[in-house]
Amino acid sequence: MKNQTPASAHIKITNIEVIGFDADDTLWHNLPYFLEVEQKFWALIEEYLPAATQKTESSPRWHLSPLNATEMQNIKRYGYGVKAFILSMIETAIRISSGRIGTNAISEIIDYGKDMLDHPIELMDDVVEVLQTLAPHYRMVLVTKGDLLDQQNKLIRSGLEDYFHHIEIVTEKNIEGYSKLVKHLDLNPAQFVMIGNSLKSDIVPVLKIGGHGLHIPYPTTWIHEQVDEPVIHKHFKELKNIKDCLSLLI
Amino acid sequence: MKNQTPASAHIKITNIEVIGFDADDTLWHNLPYFLEVEQKFWALIEEYLPAATQKTESSPRWHLSPLNATEMQNIKRYGYGVKAFILSMIETAIRISSGRIGTNAISEIIDYGKDMLDHPIELMDDVVEVLQTLAPHYRMVLVTKGDLLDQQNKLIRSGLEDYFHHIEIVTEKNIEGYSKLVKHLDLNPAQFVMIGNSLKSDIVPVLKIGGHGLHIPYPTTWIHEQVDEPVIHKHFKELKNIKDCLSLLI
Repeated sequence: MKNQTPASAHIKITNIEVIGFDADDTLWHNLPYFLEVEQKFWALIEEYLPAATQKTESSPRWHLSPLNATEMQNIKRYGYGVKAFILSMIETAIRISSGRIGTNAISEIIDYGKDMLDHPIELMDDVVEVLQTLAPHYRMVLVTKGDLLDQQNKLIRSGLEDYFHHIEIVTEKNIEGYSKLVKHLDLNPAQFVMIGNSLKSDIVPVLKIGGHGLHIPYPTTWIHEQVDEPVIHKHFKELKNIKDCLSLLI
Repeated sequence: MKNQTPASAHIKITNIEVIGFDADDTLWHNLPYFLEVEQKFWALIEEYLPAATQKTESSPRWHLSPLNATEMQNIKRYGYGVKAFILSMIETAIRISSGRIGTNAISEIIDYGKDMLDHPIELMDDVVEVLQTLAPHYRMVLVTKGDLLDQQNKLIRSGLEDYFHHIEIVTEKNIEGYSKLVKHLDLNPAQFVMIGNSLKSDIVPVLKIGGHGLHIPYPTTWIHEQVDEPVIHKHFKELKNIKDCLSLLI
């Protein structure tokens, strides 16, 4: 045993049957593409915004609030994913401009969406090595609340498909969604560990139903995903990167 | 035994573990709402269409071909469901009008989609009675290639949720999709029967992997769903309505 290994690294998580992985911003980068499109969208609608609400250094994301408001209004109807995002951008652009924005801009927004759907997958560091190491020991599922087609396409393009038994789709990543998931997998919740970048969506509800959660923060967190309180729980660990899960699971 | 009962009604399908149900136009009406919106869409873009392609009695659906063309082009990227349909309508309207259609029309198209997503569920005849009768004997799953959120919302609003173990989502209802489905359900294909209104999507690929198929034609069949050849197969039966499945399964 090496002396420099921290003691905590030796506390293994035992009796796990299935590992659930979040996909976007856990296995591959996703948020930067949304942010990039939000910037382009901003440039497109900027001239129609009232001067009083101009962009300032202190609140660089203020301009997204009309879009966020539309997204929140539509989320029950549209759900998550790129198509919902495009539709909310179109609706916001028409509303903010009182219809003056023109159909060229609408076509541009549709093209932003198509580019997002066609974008090559950029894997996070060490993902392949980690999945390769875990594969002989666990059944692994990809857990998503986005559109199935989006995620399935991404999984195929990522080259990671063979490591996953299947994709589990939950309508919401909340207590109800994860309860259905473990029931569907015929698991005791304590046999399930979820790995992801969002405390709110990937970790907290899993801990609440008795499962385990390993949190890997992504540098930027989506505005809807923020949770305020730090998590302290015997089934919880915060990791610096995905590679750190190996010492806990193998 | 009643003399008037046809002999074929007594040939039971045996060893079935799981019944898969198609949802749209099998459990509840769906196509009429799409057709209704297509009519409204037609009225919206009609003035921009070249006179040479005017609507005639002999080809009442000719006017849908530019929309169908857009849908087919987008299907790999967008998949199925209402959001994909809205996006393809917007794209078609802008293209057909060379951008002259205006943002009011775009907003109207978005509202058509929201109305579709909010529409109350209208069950097909006898569906509740059939599910109630089958429920004690079989595990039943809803099989869909649409957006999960659309279908989950519909299932909840239909009041049928308790009859189904879960929703199975397939990217495409083809051989690959159904192979994954039976693998995921840990079934031998012969232990699976699929009930639905589309030969192409619900029946033929299931028969090809060794499963059973019960076809209940819907009065109108979607243009993309047409298959030309009649199906003759020992695992296949054509039913007049959903109630007819009971004599085969109970």
